[in-house]
Amino acid sequence: MDNEKTFDETIKEILQILEEKKYVKARDELLKNNEVDIAEILEEVLEELGVDSTIIVFRMLPKDVSVEVFSYLPSEDQLAIIQGITDREISYIIEELDFDDKIDVLEELPANLVDKILEKTPKEERKLINTFLNYPENSAGSLMTPDYISLQHDMTVGEALAYIKREGMDSETVYTCYVKEAGRKLEGIVSLRALVIHDSDAKISDLMSTDYVYVNVGDDQEEVSESFKKYGFLAIPVVDKEHRLVGIITVDDILDVIEEETTEDIERMAGVIDGSDKEYLDMGVFRHVKNRLPWLILLSISLMITGSIIEQFEATLQQVVALTFYLPLLMGTGGNTGTQAATLIIRGISLGDIDLRDTFKVFWKELRISIILGVILSLFNFAKIMLIDHQTMKIALTVCASMLIVVMFAKLIGGMLPMLAKRIGIDPALMATPMISSLTDMVSALAYLAMATVVLGISI
Amino acid sequence: MDNEKTFDETIKEILQILEEKKYVKARDELLKNNEVDIAEILEEVLEELGVDSTIIVFRMLPKDVSVEVFSYLPSEDQLAIIQGITDREISYIIEELDFDDKIDVLEELPANLVDKILEKTPKEERKLINTFLNYPENSAGSLMTPDYISLQHDMTVGEALAYIKREGMDSETVYTCYVKEAGRKLEGIVSLRALVIHDSDAKISDLMSTDYVYVNVGDDQEEVSESFKKYGFLAIPVVDKEHRLVGIITVDDILDVIEEETTEDIERMAGVIDGSDKEYLDMGVFRHVKNRLPWLILLSISLMITGSIIEQFEATLQQVVALTFYLPLLMGTGGNTGTQAATLIIRGISLGDIDLRDTFKVFWKELRISIILGVILSLFNFAKIMLIDHQTMKIALTVCASMLIVVMFAKLIGGMLPMLAKRIGIDPALMATPMISSLTDMVSALAYLAMATVVLGISI
Repeated sequence: MDNEKTFDETIKEILQILEEKKYVKARDELLKNNEVDIAEILEEVLEELGVDSTIIVFRMLPKDVSVEVFSYLPSEDQLAIIQGITDREISYIIEELDFDDKIDVLEELPANLVDKILEKTPKEERKLINTFLNYPENSAGSLMTPDYISLQHDMTVGEALAYIKREGMDSETVYTCYVKEAGRKLEGIVSLRALVIHDSDAKISDLMSTDYVYVNVGDDQEEVSESFKKYGFLAIPVVDKEHRLVGIITVDDILDVIEEETTEDIERMAGVIDGSDKEYLDMGVFRHVKNRLPWLILLSISLMITGSIIEQFEATLQQVVALTFYLPLLMGTGGNTGTQAATLIIRGISLGDIDLRDTFKVFWKELRISIILGVILSLFNFAKIMLIDHQTMKIALTVCASMLIVVMFAKLIGGMLPMLAKRIGIDPALMATPMISSLTDMVSALAYLAMATVVLGISI
Repeated sequence: MDNEKTFDETIKEILQILEEKKYVKARDELLKNNEVDIAEILEEVLEELGVDSTIIVFRMLPKDVSVEVFSYLPSEDQLAIIQGITDREISYIIEELDFDDKIDVLEELPANLVDKILEKTPKEERKLINTFLNYPENSAGSLMTPDYISLQHDMTVGEALAYIKREGMDSETVYTCYVKEAGRKLEGIVSLRALVIHDSDAKISDLMSTDYVYVNVGDDQEEVSESFKKYGFLAIPVVDKEHRLVGIITVDDILDVIEEETTEDIERMAGVIDGSDKEYLDMGVFRHVKNRLPWLILLSISLMITGSIIEQFEATLQQVVALTFYLPLLMGTGGNTGTQAATLIIRGISLGDIDLRDTFKVFWKELRISIILGVILSLFNFAKIMLIDHQTMKIALTVCASMLIVVMFAKLIGGMLPMLAKRIGIDPALMATPMISSLTDMVSALAYLAMATVVLGISI
């Protein structure tokens, strides 16, 4: 988009106007943007000028705009605003929000505030809200909305369209409609495209598709997003154990889920715990420490073990200090080659390209790759050690033979550990860089120094 | 989805039937599934039983089903099928495919075959196909389709719905419609929801929105997917330099783009080049070697430099061999802590949470995090070195002081390198694990051994 630069300038301009406390002018400038962009600008205002200015501006927005803007804010910013406005204003916003946004906001609020808000809610809606609040985080239930278009199979297209005309404003989507039997069981789905294309006296039962794909209310959000990716849906129905339709999930919410799941994967692959619920900059220093320390301590212990392995070869190192110079080369290459393999396999598993049936294929492919790479890297380093370092042939041979072993080990362990993790039900993403390089470090040190001891004829 | 297991069983069953060469029965079993699933089953058939069986089954499918199934196959499988069927069958499939799928297939075919197919295409469509084939890969142009619903602003809702009823079957989506002025300029967009909700004599010009978001035909697909994520669209219009509407991009195609871009990022972060166009298992061993070798050679050189740094301290190591035992600890911790920071920053940049204006904030946050983590890790290791290893206080202090320096350096370089990459226009993902650990290896070795030399009073 070529208007990106202009948007950055818009933000700067509005911040400028607000610093001069020209609130009315700021509001007018703000309202030239769409709601998503206003929310983004308010995020900047909150970050740069603090909560007081943000609330002044927020309150000056027309009510309907303010509700929509609110729904696009990240949850910590929503909380900041809620703490600065009156209970009456809070109730208004909550009431006007779409049902799924409402649930998202209520989940983040302190329990006493939620109770206060729910007091004023009609009994039936309160019951529904409580049901939705109880679905486990990251389940299909926590993503869905009950606002969908519900038709009967004996309606005609004309009747259905008239119904959509009446109810369509309040529904999350009108593009897929759901046909329910008695007992709220899901009978079929019909697209608005089909309704618009067919004559108005056609029967819904003739148009609806009954072999639709659905998810269960307890399914993990990762499975739900797999379905969307596979089938390219705009919305998917969510059913309970009795196959009653309890809600629908729309594709726009899935884009967020995909992002969240990928971030979780990437962070796990780097040895960071559970950071995906808040943005990097919004997270406090101590929370960052808490997310990073556990793996670092664990890896510290593993690196100490590598140190102890090296200690066993004290005599060897004492006699030939030059061996130490190549320790980083071997350990580093082990880590790098292992990380490459592990990353490709983890991504392949997470995309569904690789599954457990492929274990032997992965093993065989990595075996061949590692032999070729190992030989090339060995020859490259052999030349360097002989021609530039002018070390003895024995040292050069030891380094290169260890190199081949290390590369083969690293590629195979990098390929197999994620598969093993999947088999025993651990997230394969945990088997990436830090885990792999810990293991290859140990094996590199052991293989190299043991071989050196033998080749150089040293008794330890 | 609870029917996952059943689908795996379905695949097995059909493979079984095919091995017994009961093709008619296999076809009937296959047709119990939807087209997306049939495509997935055919992929397995191709992998397990080879191209001949696959083509026999593919040819037995009803013609309309076969075209749709074909469109869901990965491009290498499409190619395999095309090489096994007659030119006449190829022409039929190409003709029947949706326009964007047609372009995707033609892009993969050898030029002479494309020419042969295009010979039989009407002149106007041939021209359009050639234009689309010329859009650069990964541009908005290469993702879009020209099959959209195009309205005029002086139409009534009733007229628009009648038009959609006639043309809706051939359009990629009917849920967003595009209003064009004379000269094909995009004037506004209107949703099918708005059309269905309003009375049939309402004017399109009153319903359409004119401050729509659009992308330019040359924009990178990453920018396009950012827009989808930000605004939650179902489709986005693509315009040329004269603001003429040339096509639209729908959200289902964006799900693939997001996946592709993320895979590219993750692979780059692990030091793997350009592997995202083919799945892991479909790529040959030599292609894998080619994708992995360049970084490994580069890193080899950097590890050699680390080795040379260590070599400078030969005298120190000769006198106190015990120093070697803690080299892996320091280098490993540097790599691990740096990788954590770099990964979080790279992901933050790629999600748009962090931009260049935040450089100082990132620096300040990582500085504080690194001091806290550095102190904790130092104390932890100090205790271990004194109490378990029974080394001298001097060695323990040297290791721990170096540890603090290494952690601080690693976190700051891990946080700043991706920002620097962004500023000079390189992909920040290239600044991940391998790059960071190379740098921290050098700094760890240097800081540790230099400090040891001074503390232990050794002259080198």
